[in-house]
Amino acid sequence: MSSSDKPLLGGIEAGGTKFVLAVGHSPTEIIARHEIPTRDPSTTLAEAGEWFEGQQAISALGIASFGPVELDRSSPHWGHITNTPKPGWANCDIAGYFAERLAVPIGFDTDVNGAALAEYEHGAGKAAASLAYITVGTGIGGGLVLDGTAVHGAAHPETGHILPRRHADDREFEGVCPHHGDCLEGLASGPAIKARWGSSLSELPADHLAHEIIAYYLAQLAHSLIAMTAAEIIVLGGGVMRTGGLLGRVNERASQIGAAYFPGGSKHKIVSPGLGNNAGLAGALLLAPSH
Amino acid sequence: MSSSDKPLLGGIEAGGTKFVLAVGHSPTEIIARHEIPTRDPSTTLAEAGEWFEGQQAISALGIASFGPVELDRSSPHWGHITNTPKPGWANCDIAGYFAERLAVPIGFDTDVNGAALAEYEHGAGKAAASLAYITVGTGIGGGLVLDGTAVHGAAHPETGHILPRRHADDREFEGVCPHHGDCLEGLASGPAIKARWGSSLSELPADHLAHEIIAYYLAQLAHSLIAMTAAEIIVLGGGVMRTGGLLGRVNERASQIGAAYFPGGSKHKIVSPGLGNNAGLAGALLLAPSH
Repeated sequence: MSSSDKPLLGGIEAGGTKFVLAVGHSPTEIIARHEIPTRDPSTTLAEAGEWFEGQQAISALGIASFGPVELDRSSPHWGHITNTPKPGWANCDIAGYFAERLAVPIGFDTDVNGAALAEYEHGAGKAAASLAYITVGTGIGGGLVLDGTAVHGAAHPETGHILPRRHADDREFEGVCPHHGDCLEGLASGPAIKARWGSSLSELPADHLAHEIIAYYLAQLAHSLIAMTAAEIIVLGGGVMRTGGLLGRVNERASQIGAAYFPGGSKHKIVSPGLGNNAGLAGALLLAPSH
Repeated sequence: MSSSDKPLLGGIEAGGTKFVLAVGHSPTEIIARHEIPTRDPSTTLAEAGEWFEGQQAISALGIASFGPVELDRSSPHWGHITNTPKPGWANCDIAGYFAERLAVPIGFDTDVNGAALAEYEHGAGKAAASLAYITVGTGIGGGLVLDGTAVHGAAHPETGHILPRRHADDREFEGVCPHHGDCLEGLASGPAIKARWGSSLSELPADHLAHEIIAYYLAQLAHSLIAMTAAEIIVLGGGVMRTGGLLGRVNERASQIGAAYFPGGSKHKIVSPGLGNNAGLAGALLLAPSH
């Protein structure tokens, strides 16, 4: 059917820095798009609601949100951001706000599950059976799609909080994770890089040891994902991954660590997002209940 | 319907030490069971085939096998054990043997995916949305069931080969994994314990540091599984887990490491197999194609 016959959907990529809003028939048929900075919840949600009210009427809305979030449909807190350290946002009923204001059915998941779905359907995972999407930025988070379905388990993955083995030349730094200190997020997120070396990874010279250290930690993440889920495609996105050469280093290190052991070897790939920076918004639109 | 109306199924739990064979209507309705030692493939498969020929005719057979195995239905090697170090067994066409000899449809998966399915359906995961089954014995392997389906990804998980952080009092040992040295299997499997301390864990005094060291590694496994898959129930089985007090120590250590961070907190449980030693055989019967 043509675009105009399809229902019109809304999408919100709710990030810690900005909200990206869109109206479209699908992730590849977006007809309007808008960004607003993430301020306090009441300001931000009101601005977003107002924007949608100024667009053609949508029949459903998908929200891909920063977390942690409540995904249990049987919980009274479904659709809430839960215990985030982000000031003002803990226990924010983001799905409830839009359900009431826009009076449409709401789909809701983590930003990274949304991005994983989008990469699986339209991006780097188009020919694959399974895909993990990892963002390495202000935090480190991961979403997992197996056989077309985002994995939720007891809640949702918190992939950034595994404990990588420390690099021999990075033993002193305590890590910046308020919960676990030197977990992966505590060691390899943007703030962890800044805390150690005073700048972003991309600003450090190409021969700076930081590149090798961060690649080693991210390679362990890829190794563990393959070991635990056998995921075919591992997509590494987020600001830190835009550092020149980093993806190549992660691939080299992961190959060394894996030692060609895993069954299905050549099917495993560690790649950049096929959708670039649009994976999150595409995921939000995919989350909108379409029937 | 009563048992006698249901099709009769066969199951083979193909282990490195023994093959367990059964005929029954379901995992809870087994009518005959037999064990044979695992010798070379031709002897072992022939003995198993002979036993099934002496039973009532089965309509389908499920095989839950030690691995690595080929699970890609489009591969000519589907149903084979692949690059196992076990002498004689590499490239053994175990599914093909029984398909030809017994002329019935064959279901085939890893022993741990079979056990995970069985624990999910009939054991420790009965009320859960997702479950991981880990065996800690001669090797360390894991199967994962999410929403009722065993996870395959590019092949199947090889959970034993993650790289745990080394315990402060266990820095010298090189590990016994021929591929990765001091991966989890290289550090915490039965042979790794024996190589370090000269006996099994259960034979060491309760105040021996080995208990704490092994618990620390297995707690990291549980932590990583929860972080990456949000699995609700983590079942720890296998010979090493029969060590008195070990499950409790793993739970304590995992709680410390996790620091109450993960969403869905109280849903996450680390438990013993609900089916005891029968999970593998029950899984084999569940793998038999029933229609």
